[in-house]
Amino acid sequence: MMRSLFTAIILAASTSTLAQQAPAPLPQVPEAITNLQKAALDDRLAWTIAEDLTTEVGQRLAGTEAEARARTWAAGRLRSLGFSNVRVESFPIASWTRGFESAEIVAPFPQRLVIAALGNSASTGADGITGEVVGFESEQALEAAPDSAVRGKIVFVSHAMQRTQDGSGYGFFGGPRRQGPSVASRKGALAIVIRSIGTDYHRNPHAGVQTFAPGVKPIPAGALSIPDAEQLQRILSHASMQGREPVTMHLTLVSQTQPGQSGNVIAEVPGRDPSLPPVLIGGHLDSWDLGTGAIDDAAGLAITTAAAHRIKAAGRPLRTIRVVWFGSEEIGLFGGLDYQKKYGAQPHHAVAESDFGAGRIWKVDSKLGKGREDEARLLQAALAPLGIVPGSLEQADGSDIGPLIAAGVPAVGLSQDGTHYFDIHHTPDDTLDKIDKEDLRQNVAAWTTMLAVLAGPIEPEPKRGKQR
Amino acid sequence: MMRSLFTAIILAASTSTLAQQAPAPLPQVPEAITNLQKAALDDRLAWTIAEDLTTEVGQRLAGTEAEARARTWAAGRLRSLGFSNVRVESFPIASWTRGFESAEIVAPFPQRLVIAALGNSASTGADGITGEVVGFESEQALEAAPDSAVRGKIVFVSHAMQRTQDGSGYGFFGGPRRQGPSVASRKGALAIVIRSIGTDYHRNPHAGVQTFAPGVKPIPAGALSIPDAEQLQRILSHASMQGREPVTMHLTLVSQTQPGQSGNVIAEVPGRDPSLPPVLIGGHLDSWDLGTGAIDDAAGLAITTAAAHRIKAAGRPLRTIRVVWFGSEEIGLFGGLDYQKKYGAQPHHAVAESDFGAGRIWKVDSKLGKGREDEARLLQAALAPLGIVPGSLEQADGSDIGPLIAAGVPAVGLSQDGTHYFDIHHTPDDTLDKIDKEDLRQNVAAWTTMLAVLAGPIEPEPKRGKQR
Repeated sequence: MMRSLFTAIILAASTSTLAQQAPAPLPQVPEAITNLQKAALDDRLAWTIAEDLTTEVGQRLAGTEAEARARTWAAGRLRSLGFSNVRVESFPIASWTRGFESAEIVAPFPQRLVIAALGNSASTGADGITGEVVGFESEQALEAAPDSAVRGKIVFVSHAMQRTQDGSGYGFFGGPRRQGPSVASRKGALAIVIRSIGTDYHRNPHAGVQTFAPGVKPIPAGALSIPDAEQLQRILSHASMQGREPVTMHLTLVSQTQPGQSGNVIAEVPGRDPSLPPVLIGGHLDSWDLGTGAIDDAAGLAITTAAAHRIKAAGRPLRTIRVVWFGSEEIGLFGGLDYQKKYGAQPHHAVAESDFGAGRIWKVDSKLGKGREDEARLLQAALAPLGIVPGSLEQADGSDIGPLIAAGVPAVGLSQDGTHYFDIHHTPDDTLDKIDKEDLRQNVAAWTTMLAVLAGPIEPEPKRGKQR
Repeated sequence: MMRSLFTAIILAASTSTLAQQAPAPLPQVPEAITNLQKAALDDRLAWTIAEDLTTEVGQRLAGTEAEARARTWAAGRLRSLGFSNVRVESFPIASWTRGFESAEIVAPFPQRLVIAALGNSASTGADGITGEVVGFESEQALEAAPDSAVRGKIVFVSHAMQRTQDGSGYGFFGGPRRQGPSVASRKGALAIVIRSIGTDYHRNPHAGVQTFAPGVKPIPAGALSIPDAEQLQRILSHASMQGREPVTMHLTLVSQTQPGQSGNVIAEVPGRDPSLPPVLIGGHLDSWDLGTGAIDDAAGLAITTAAAHRIKAAGRPLRTIRVVWFGSEEIGLFGGLDYQKKYGAQPHHAVAESDFGAGRIWKVDSKLGKGREDEARLLQAALAPLGIVPGSLEQADGSDIGPLIAAGVPAVGLSQDGTHYFDIHHTPDDTLDKIDKEDLRQNVAAWTTMLAVLAGPIEPEPKRGKQR
């Protein structure tokens, strides 16, 4: 009795608090949208696309022959799925590729550590380099160090990225990867090795791009797997406690940069009214070279393409749906920039991107602009049955669509659960087995719903006497 | 009320069933033993040994210079911990080491797979070999295949080891690794690649030994990581469905075999009565070369040595405790065989080994022989407070102590929880971070308890006038 009463009081209190915070009731969702959503929960196409791309192409590093094969594969698949206006739009890039890689502690405790070069790393050459290792606990500590502590040495930056649902730690904890190499080079370092930007404990380094700041001399830059980074911390600590410094490392990071081609693959579901601005959805076709790019980003392509295919199969949407498989996202968002150059001046009804793995969608944000609040709130209402929290009406982000959003293009953000994303991100472990089929279907249902709201209503094919 | 009554009935019924199965009550445990056990739950030495060995030596493959460094390290550490009669007992072995390794699908879907050679694999030479891949779902399917289906091809055996607490699947599911290479060679295969014997989904292959049967020509033999093995299954299936067979692989597994030295490191806690047979405990010092041998078997050395050190610190046991850090376990139990050759004819009060990771101990088995039931049941009673199930009084096993047990030497088996053991076993992922400190302490407490029962009672140092 006491317990029940207590529970009732607590419930009343918390309900009351929630009620104060709750927004106005959401609008009614048309039955046609609900039906499309329910059917999408049985989707099989997304899995097929993810399986086929990761199996029949595998890794597809930007600018390489493998990415070119992926474009051919993509255009063929999009055509065979019945999409319209399928095209490859190529653009040139600098193509960085890795060769032999090794990090060996020479003294005082000889052993090999697992490493992968960061994108745009300078090459050590096949013979490698040898230097004293100097450790820093953060990018800030490296920045604060006098040049004399770093000059001629191999800088090691350790830190510990924390696991979050929304991936918000990637910006801050990614600093040592993105800025670390330039900071180390400015101070005269021989090379830099960082703790991988990730949240797992496997011997798989996290690759990722870094770009040397203008005027800064490129140096070799690599990421140790997290167990290896912690091992190096222990090696430094034991050597120091035993008076057996310095710790020396022989580092080999072979790489080369050549002129290469990349490209976007674009396909459409034509709208009934071609005069209306399209809804753009997509993900990126390129991947890092260590895994098969399953969660990054075959999943995003699979989800968005399967959703567009469902709309197409249901009839014809009011607005054109444009599906873009961007090239060269990983090494500098070059596909997004090329798209913006070619199409940025044209209006878009909305843009949205799936590029944060294959986890369930847990929140919807949007920034559709003034006068479109009803549309934004219908979107929230329509997604709620999938367990998706109504989020902000004032923001949305993305990587390839980032430049468009920055330029004021209306956007939607379907936030995936990233709790485990950085266990896998950019590692050899990004393989098909990491995709959960049920989570993938929930994504397809959410994207189908979003398209039904923003590009709809869907009606039968318009009759065109002349063309028949 | 209905619910409570129902629960009471169920409880009564199940208690009654259990009561029928329960053995006679366990004996009283002397307070001295309970106190040693409680104190051991705060142990720090085991972690220190595991950290120091894996950091300051790292991998220590049998027969290599690294294993020799590990013996020097071990003897130094055991002496500095105050053990007596510390000695290295060397023996010659054939030392197999790996070089460059790569498995590349050439057609129809070009891509690289992650592979590691199995112990005693033949070398492909630096240029590698190229062949058609033929897949089998089990060792049995390979055995049933006509030679003509295998001759000149690269055999691939997939299967799926199941996770168990007691590791009992390792025997059956390990068949493709242990016998597969010999079966494939007899049928004229060019080489064999297997799905790693493991239960994880990381791009880390599981190494392990195989020995070609007498008269069988050695062929290259490797293990794909589990994601790569599933990828190869998909590649075979997609190629078949699309009529794009054969699947061809370029395989490079460089290795060499040279004469080498291994050895056991032995240390003792002398008993008050040197005429009594000793209690032997230990684990193995060598490791596979891909990880740092943390759970296999720095943990076993750390647990058993910390337990013996606790007994030594508490006074002097009745019987001598002999701690053996065996060499060359991984490649053929050579340390155990060398020990048996040298000491097998001497009586042992009991032998016990810790070599199944660092998980909690959940069960105690023993085979002490007739007339020692009271001792065995006191051991069960003393371990019960640690959550350890009283197991069989008729069995115990081990790898390095296997030959002794087979010869009838009394033995104790403290069974560790192996639910996650084969996620890590023999992979690059066998690193210090995989050891849980609390689980390690529970192990030390269990081994301390076991020694207090079997080597005890512990009393003050006997006075020896002449020697003082």
